[in-house]
Amino acid sequence: MAHLINNNVFLAFSTYATIVVLKMMFMSFITVYYRMTRKAFSNWEDTAMGNNNPEDRKKLLQTNPDVERVRRCHQNDLENIIPFVVIGLLYALTGPDLSTALLHFRVFVGSRFIHTVAYVMALPQPSRALAWIVGLFTTFSMAYRVLTAALFL
Amino acid sequence: MAHLINNNVFLAFSTYATIVVLKMMFMSFITVYYRMTRKAFSNWEDTAMGNNNPEDRKKLLQTNPDVERVRRCHQNDLENIIPFVVIGLLYALTGPDLSTALLHFRVFVGSRFIHTVAYVMALPQPSRALAWIVGLFTTFSMAYRVLTAALFL
Amino acid sequence: MAHLINNNVFLAFSTYATIVVLKMMFMSFITVYYRMTRKAFSNWEDTAMGNNNPEDRKKLLQTNPDVERVRRCHQNDLENIIPFVVIGLLYALTGPDLSTALLHFRVFVGSRFIHTVAYVMALPQPSRALAWIVGLFTTFSMAYRVLTAALFL
Repeated sequence: MAHLINNNVFLAFSTYATIVVLKMMFMSFITVYYRMTRKAFSNWEDTAMGNNNPEDRKKLLQTNPDVERVRRCHQNDLENIIPFVVIGLLYALTGPDLSTALLHFRVFVGSRFIHTVAYVMALPQPSRALAWIVGLFTTFSMAYRVLTAALFL
Repeated sequence: MAHLINNNVFLAFSTYATIVVLKMMFMSFITVYYRMTRKAFSNWEDTAMGNNNPEDRKKLLQTNPDVERVRRCHQNDLENIIPFVVIGLLYALTGPDLSTALLHFRVFVGSRFIHTVAYVMALPQPSRALAWIVGLFTTFSMAYRVLTAALFL
Repeated sequence: MAHLINNNVFLAFSTYATIVVLKMMFMSFITVYYRMTRKAFSNWEDTAMGNNNPEDRKKLLQTNPDVERVRRCHQNDLENIIPFVVIGLLYALTGPDLSTALLHFRVFVGSRFIHTVAYVMALPQPSRALAWIVGLFTTFSMAYRVLTAALFL
């Protein structure tokens, strides 16, 4: 595999893909944090935690706006970061210029960090919409390169 | 990376995977379109849009059946297209016949386009169920090839 | 592609990634099974099934706790198994020891099977939480290796 490991575009893809996937996984911790502090759970077995009174436990089976907000942010990550990883991998294999590839990877990863901050902190629009659109068009730009460099129908 | 780029099965995989991931990303635009036209949003900051009356804005925080339908379709894409991409990539690396590989890729991608039309337009069953099953079994067929060609437990 | 196919770490990754993705896809069948037996559907066109009385069909458009539980389990798979596949692929390409790689792959896949059983059967906590955490840290360990072996910012 030496040729992949010695290829800077592929190394850059590996680095940025890993960082942005770790960011996506981090949403789970924020969800758990909000579930604990807002006392809002979805599963009966999650409501025990030292309290065995069924009436008290039933009250913990509720939805909470903060939990739902983080979950929507996590879902948006799944809908956007996974396409970036798939198309970015194929893009890296088409042999683009290193500087062009780095631009794509950095803009995408930056846009998703801004998107998360805008979503979780409920910043006024169009901050979140713009971050989303920038990430989307970065992925489209890489897809265009894949389809022009490697089209085989 | 010349050997991947010169491999027709891998080029075909790149092409069909990119097309079907772009189709999946397109669901976001349909969701935004329905949210705008049906005036149904999930986040308070999304309801401003030139209107600062809190009472009017609160009414926009609603669920809408058309929005929910598109979101279920998008979710079904995540649950089926991502497994195709993962297993399809590994399948392409096992060196299958080009014609067999093309058959798998084309049937899968076709089935997902039909699935989306059947879901968004609410066509009578079993149209959507059949499209889903065909995509599923295409992925299973590729997984069978991966596990028989590359099993290492 | 002979060098990938002859590389045991990559073969092991292919095998375990395929198995755990198939497990994830299997959640769809459990969802369908519960929707059928609990008579709980989300789409009007899914409620026909030999019954044309609109009143009877309307009653089938309901949420059911068993269906929702399986869907949450499937969602948790998407949130955890896809990061494993992405980071595991990059990890396999960094050329780790075969025994270390096998340990990561086996622990992750095992933890996700235990997680599914704990979730679907509603086993008392912390069984599900522990299975989730073990899978998470296995992925973090592989990400650490990718970032130290291939960092290129």
